[in-house]
Amino acid sequence: MTFKYNNVYINETATITGLYESNGPLSKLFDKSYNDFYFGTKSWELAESKLIEESVDMVLNKINKTKSDINVHISGDLLNQITATNYAASSLGIPLMGIYGACSTSVLGLTIASNMIETNQVKNAIVSTSSHNNAAEKQFRYPVEYGGPKRKTTTFTCTGGASAYLSNDKRGIKVESATIGRVIDLGIKDVYNMGAVMAPAAASTIYEHLKDTKREIGYYDLVLTGDLGVYGKKILKDYIFTEYNINLENYNDCGTIIYDIDTQPVYAGASGPACAPLVTYSYVFNKMKKGELNRVLIVATGALMSPTLVNEKNTIPAIAHAISLEVIS
Amino acid sequence: MTFKYNNVYINETATITGLYESNGPLSKLFDKSYNDFYFGTKSWELAESKLIEESVDMVLNKINKTKSDINVHISGDLLNQITATNYAASSLGIPLMGIYGACSTSVLGLTIASNMIETNQVKNAIVSTSSHNNAAEKQFRYPVEYGGPKRKTTTFTCTGGASAYLSNDKRGIKVESATIGRVIDLGIKDVYNMGAVMAPAAASTIYEHLKDTKREIGYYDLVLTGDLGVYGKKILKDYIFTEYNINLENYNDCGTIIYDIDTQPVYAGASGPACAPLVTYSYVFNKMKKGELNRVLIVATGALMSPTLVNEKNTIPAIAHAISLEVIS
Repeated sequence: MTFKYNNVYINETATITGLYESNGPLSKLFDKSYNDFYFGTKSWELAESKLIEESVDMVLNKINKTKSDINVHISGDLLNQITATNYAASSLGIPLMGIYGACSTSVLGLTIASNMIETNQVKNAIVSTSSHNNAAEKQFRYPVEYGGPKRKTTTFTCTGGASAYLSNDKRGIKVESATIGRVIDLGIKDVYNMGAVMAPAAASTIYEHLKDTKREIGYYDLVLTGDLGVYGKKILKDYIFTEYNINLENYNDCGTIIYDIDTQPVYAGASGPACAPLVTYSYVFNKMKKGELNRVLIVATGALMSPTLVNEKNTIPAIAHAISLEVIS
Repeated sequence: MTFKYNNVYINETATITGLYESNGPLSKLFDKSYNDFYFGTKSWELAESKLIEESVDMVLNKINKTKSDINVHISGDLLNQITATNYAASSLGIPLMGIYGACSTSVLGLTIASNMIETNQVKNAIVSTSSHNNAAEKQFRYPVEYGGPKRKTTTFTCTGGASAYLSNDKRGIKVESATIGRVIDLGIKDVYNMGAVMAPAAASTIYEHLKDTKREIGYYDLVLTGDLGVYGKKILKDYIFTEYNINLENYNDCGTIIYDIDTQPVYAGASGPACAPLVTYSYVFNKMKKGELNRVLIVATGALMSPTLVNEKNTIPAIAHAISLEVIS
């Protein structure tokens, strides 16, 4: 399902990260980075919640507005019950639409916001998401204190919070269209190979987006998946060519951009809902504002992994949502 | 944030329940009920997922459409990672917008769908949610096999799945307006008193809805909260009068309607995301179709309870979303 927009703009964004991200190549492009994992709170979950609350406050500061000026906050994260979102929203007091799309959450949120802004149902919206390495490891795998070794194909949940302010004011970056994806499950059960789990979902959504918009892949200066990592990238390129006859050039993955894969201890690259928006709002927007990129398709990928269902020997479904971003002409 | 609609209708619905619900007073109004908790699957989680998948198939059958006719599926549930939704969506193959609002999920989904249908961004949508007593108890409290005693104020997660088909075809029930609520946290930590946790959120949303629509509470023939239970109902009536000077008459709570509170072992009544839509699509729609009710405000209430955050001694935030339903004139 693809939506077209003529009147929606991401006017401003805010990005906050943890330590590993601030040691990575995009360090200088983030608004703020912390050097520990608690950020002055008592738990990793409250720390993650702070990433959302603080990124919303930061974006409000940048646009010189207050919480009461915002019509709706659309937010989700990787914690059970989207706890980071809910506790932040409790302080923020903005009407909340809670969403869940695992690491595809950012683009799902931008799409719901764009739908309402395009049709003047709301004047503005803030879209947020977050992830926190230690909180995610504890919830999905093992507490990091165990220090368990991992396979090369494992991705490393990034720590960060990202918020975007959208309205029909013609400034910033234009949201041109968006495609809501389908859940795809090719039968993979390996929780240490999320790139392989998500690649077919990314392929499906890219195919649907091109079909719906009647475009060739070359229309985009850059196609950027969310968090497939080094191995997932290769799988996507092979799979989308074999399955859909799409030759994916001008392609990269946020999970391999946010870290220096060769020197940082992050296995196959970054994952987490914050990965796609952190890279989009820093690296991509920076290049778009400098005129180095004009049309970018962000394909946020989400492994819908449930530890409970995986323990019950079920396979892992995945989803991807895509959003087309353009320099304002 | 309140949205007004002139062109959105719930054309058809499907309701499936478990054993306790089929032993309750609304038994004959549900489309289907199971007599066990597995429904032919191997786990409670897969059983809950079946409730979503089967209720979507059932609604498609009723409207004589296939999955490929549906533009978008909006769904969420109470399981971590909204697993019931994701596994069902994997079989269904309809573009999915995943949402999370705990037990307020149904109205959040109806609102997002109504927004897109009102403005012709989609032709149609199916909105689903589910809950499963044993799956929820295992995840949020203790496995039911423990047989632990509970306080009277505890609510009993209902087992059921509900799906609604919406479009701008003028038949069924009209969606007249909807209000997205704010997260409210009055500092309660008692996981066995969700009614008290959620009542202030319900009050806030009812107040915002009346303010935005410039209505008195008497405009509605019935105001129906989602799952406050016996004690939460009383708290809401007191609280909304004290705090907002609203005299809540013509009021009831879905959690006290779906069961016979005096004879069934359900403590203070039903909870769970399925509670509000099961009662709305059966009891309420039945009365609306018979002309006994014309205007109904459904206020789906969600306790955004995270076992992790509660174990860390945090308070429990809550949210409520409201939707105004009308008999087609």
